[in-house]
Amino acid sequence: MFLIHYPNGKKAAPRPSLPPKPQIKTEYGKRGMTLEEDLNQSNEVYLAKGMAVIHKKPTPVQIVSVDYPKRSAAVIKEAYFKTASTTDYNGVYKGRYIDFEAKETKNKNSFPLKNFHSHQICHMESVQKQGGIAFVILRFSEDNETYLLDASYLFPYFSTSYDGRKSIPREEIALLGTLLPLSYSPRIHYLEAVDELYFP
Amino acid sequence: MFLIHYPNGKKAAPRPSLPPKPQIKTEYGKRGMTLEEDLNQSNEVYLAKGMAVIHKKPTPVQIVSVDYPKRSAAVIKEAYFKTASTTDYNGVYKGRYIDFEAKETKNKNSFPLKNFHSHQICHMESVQKQGGIAFVILRFSEDNETYLLDASYLFPYFSTSYDGRKSIPREEIALLGTLLPLSYSPRIHYLEAVDELYFP
Repeated sequence: MFLIHYPNGKKAAPRPSLPPKPQIKTEYGKRGMTLEEDLNQSNEVYLAKGMAVIHKKPTPVQIVSVDYPKRSAAVIKEAYFKTASTTDYNGVYKGRYIDFEAKETKNKNSFPLKNFHSHQICHMESVQKQGGIAFVILRFSEDNETYLLDASYLFPYFSTSYDGRKSIPREEIALLGTLLPLSYSPRIHYLEAVDELYFP
Repeated sequence: MFLIHYPNGKKAAPRPSLPPKPQIKTEYGKRGMTLEEDLNQSNEVYLAKGMAVIHKKPTPVQIVSVDYPKRSAAVIKEAYFKTASTTDYNGVYKGRYIDFEAKETKNKNSFPLKNFHSHQICHMESVQKQGGIAFVILRFSEDNETYLLDASYLFPYFSTSYDGRKSIPREEIALLGTLLPLSYSPRIHYLEAVDELYFP
């Protein structure tokens, strides 16, 4: 707990609300990189070591207008973000197709599923039907715990008959998923969990 | 040939350079869709029929500035095209990882390889080493002939010791590759060739 000593010698009461933004940034810096940065670093390590070929897909963008100035690179002047129809990461590991989506939450007790689009869920279902490996990597960023969870656990939440809460309790993730320890290089060695789950 | 009748009644000499743009477009229209459109349609058919999950990756773009107007979608105001580090298409078929790049040429007798980046060649080599399936789809657009060719045939052209012509003679493609017949739906049923080559 961060306490302020006032001139009167008394300790201030603990702050009741969220700390101001700059403090969040500092705290964040201590904890390290975002999940995306961790995964990109890990995928680079895997590629360099010949362990797997897994890339993040580019952000899908609808390009509306492009300038072609003489003697310099084309400049996109107007474009819009499009909803992704697939997941962000895919590639090949030991001959198998690997496909996953990665998300972070600041929630402590459950993982909200509103950040997953129904297209992405459909996509992961199709991938599994086609014999591919599909999972999600979920991070609770407040205490930096990261889990790998087979995608099939999400499907019931997106079925047309389901109208309950779209979030998975943390205990369920801890029970059904695999905790991914952080290390130096690769930052998240998620292929260990993939080996355990899909190459027994 | 497009000839201009001058007021003196004489026919002008044939234009020595390329015909004007609209004429190219009309000719192109007769021949049907571009290779990319054909492949996207085929991949949609495969997905809808549950035969394979193969998508074109979004064009990689470096976003520099974005406007967030109130009450409407974010507008990308400045962005640049980035060189792709992987191929354009990938996905899963019968549990295996599929990866390919597709290119067209107007040449008649050989396929120039300058449109393939060395990153893409490296990528396809890594994919094959990891047990994935990597190939190229090459179209001679003048007579609309399309071939599937295993990526390994391109590797020697990009080795550091090679300094010959970076184009593959058409006879070699016809000999080593598989001709892909065009049909109505899917427009290019390239999975037939994949079955033949990689699932014997």
